[in-house]
Amino acid sequence: MNIGIVGFGGVGKAFVKLLYDKKNYLEKIGLDINLLYIINSTVGIYNPEGINLKNLIENLDLNKKLDEFYASKYINTNFNKMIEIKDIDTLIVMTPTNKETGQPGLSYIKQALENKINVVTADKGPVMLAYKKLNELAIKNNVQFKIGCTCGGALPTVNTGTIDMAGADILSIEGILNGTTNFILEHMENNMVSYHEALLEAQRLGIAETNPSLDVEGWDTAIKLLILTNVLMNQEKKLSDIAVKGITSLSLNDIEEAKRENMKYKLIGKTTNDNGNIHMSVNLEKIDISHPFYIVNSKNKGVRYISDTLGDLTIMGGASGVRAASASILRDIININC
Amino acid sequence: MNIGIVGFGGVGKAFVKLLYDKKNYLEKIGLDINLLYIINSTVGIYNPEGINLKNLIENLDLNKKLDEFYASKYINTNFNKMIEIKDIDTLIVMTPTNKETGQPGLSYIKQALENKINVVTADKGPVMLAYKKLNELAIKNNVQFKIGCTCGGALPTVNTGTIDMAGADILSIEGILNGTTNFILEHMENNMVSYHEALLEAQRLGIAETNPSLDVEGWDTAIKLLILTNVLMNQEKKLSDIAVKGITSLSLNDIEEAKRENMKYKLIGKTTNDNGNIHMSVNLEKIDISHPFYIVNSKNKGVRYISDTLGDLTIMGGASGVRAASASILRDIININC
Repeated sequence: MNIGIVGFGGVGKAFVKLLYDKKNYLEKIGLDINLLYIINSTVGIYNPEGINLKNLIENLDLNKKLDEFYASKYINTNFNKMIEIKDIDTLIVMTPTNKETGQPGLSYIKQALENKINVVTADKGPVMLAYKKLNELAIKNNVQFKIGCTCGGALPTVNTGTIDMAGADILSIEGILNGTTNFILEHMENNMVSYHEALLEAQRLGIAETNPSLDVEGWDTAIKLLILTNVLMNQEKKLSDIAVKGITSLSLNDIEEAKRENMKYKLIGKTTNDNGNIHMSVNLEKIDISHPFYIVNSKNKGVRYISDTLGDLTIMGGASGVRAASASILRDIININC
Repeated sequence: MNIGIVGFGGVGKAFVKLLYDKKNYLEKIGLDINLLYIINSTVGIYNPEGINLKNLIENLDLNKKLDEFYASKYINTNFNKMIEIKDIDTLIVMTPTNKETGQPGLSYIKQALENKINVVTADKGPVMLAYKKLNELAIKNNVQFKIGCTCGGALPTVNTGTIDMAGADILSIEGILNGTTNFILEHMENNMVSYHEALLEAQRLGIAETNPSLDVEGWDTAIKLLILTNVLMNQEKKLSDIAVKGITSLSLNDIEEAKRENMKYKLIGKTTNDNGNIHMSVNLEKIDISHPFYIVNSKNKGVRYISDTLGDLTIMGGASGVRAASASILRDIININC
């Protein structure tokens, strides 16, 4: 199986390392993955025989940039040339997320699918804006469009809602979908410090970003909830259809009061389908031990689906970080072939 | 898609009802399931055009037996004739479990796979005794062998361990795999009654069987653990390789002591893979809230997989009963076609 990568940041680098580490595993299951292209915003490298992973990783570990690497060894290329040559079965899209336009990932995905190339994406933008159309395009061209990485990474929220709930109607979706806010909430609780102190600690540990607004204002949760809603309930909702509240106004008093009641605050994205009437929200909720999310700790995530014929299903866990995210991409690639 | 059923007890009857109820759903996903055969131990009915589900269900609801139904309408048939005509794509095997020989399910499954017919089985016997060989036979004949119902029913233990963990090595499996014992343990705890009183209550509610030994002595848990171990860790272990202890010797004193420590007793099946050294056990374990199984209540079940690259994954829930079991069969049928 020949693959190409477009977008080459942290997850991309972790992915090529994982591909190398999983050589024996992939051999055992009879899947020979051959990486032909790596294309980022400034340069593209191409080896029609397959890029030497060991060599590539050694150079990346020396902090060499892709263009230094390519200059010495491989053919200069770009996205359009790759689509023309069309010698890959699957394209991995790891471009940065743009939640307004979905670009540049959106047009890469469209072109690949139109050219009968499977797509595995880690870029949330195109999925949140155009999942239904892109999936129809994939079906029309008899290829697959896999999005596992966009919605929880290692936690298989999409697989579980589609494959594991096949045949059932999903009546509601609930999720702790953002590890950073879950960490901050637990840190406030365990150490009785203010939101701002907990945020600083999360930033110090590299868990929260310098500009944390996407996480703490609930938008990352909302984006993932939107994807799950559109995919699992066959909708075409928009981000603006979700009532979104974050965690920034939570006070220590609130936490103290919840503690006295043996309860915890969690940031929960929730969609209910009431006879076709879809309601979506992201909110701080106070829950007790009767709710399975009570035990979703630290940077972990969880989702619960309530269905008509397969009952309730809660999944929790899923490691964080670029290696786990890259493992969720490899999972999608393997599932395309099984 | 043409299907046949062999073995027609409670789950079989629930399955034909589900098939009828899910007509719109199946139409929407473009899957036309046509039931041609129902074969039980005494009689077989066959309609080459497809058995009328509405008519069948009405007669079953009137408590009519299959032979009364067939006599009036359909062609008498048997398993061998079905295999000769070979007009089905998928066989649903719902024969009773024999954990010593796997029969009669084992030979039905073998013959179907050899004749290039997909198999979905609810019969645990053939799976626990011969999964690897049967799966190899399926691969050789380019058909699928699906076993989701044998190991937790609605709780997608097999799918999660294979599809959702694809690309990862599973290092350990832990499961609350038996709803009856989980109910009994919780009933002892909540009402401070003895094991025997809790068992009687479970029997009164129809949760435990008149002869409860398979459940309470840990064998049902062991069978499911064996299947998960063989499937997810590519082993060919036997039931006798598992150290099995049940719940019958648990005293109220034990429960009281655990309660004082904020702990609970759970019957847990566990497999660890220590560099290829596989260890399997079924045991009562005392756990606290740091273990996700602490919140697996009543008849619910749960499994936790620890993996190398996709982290820890816990799934819990999954409704009990024949309708949920039949929904897990429908799930496997849909996944064959996707």
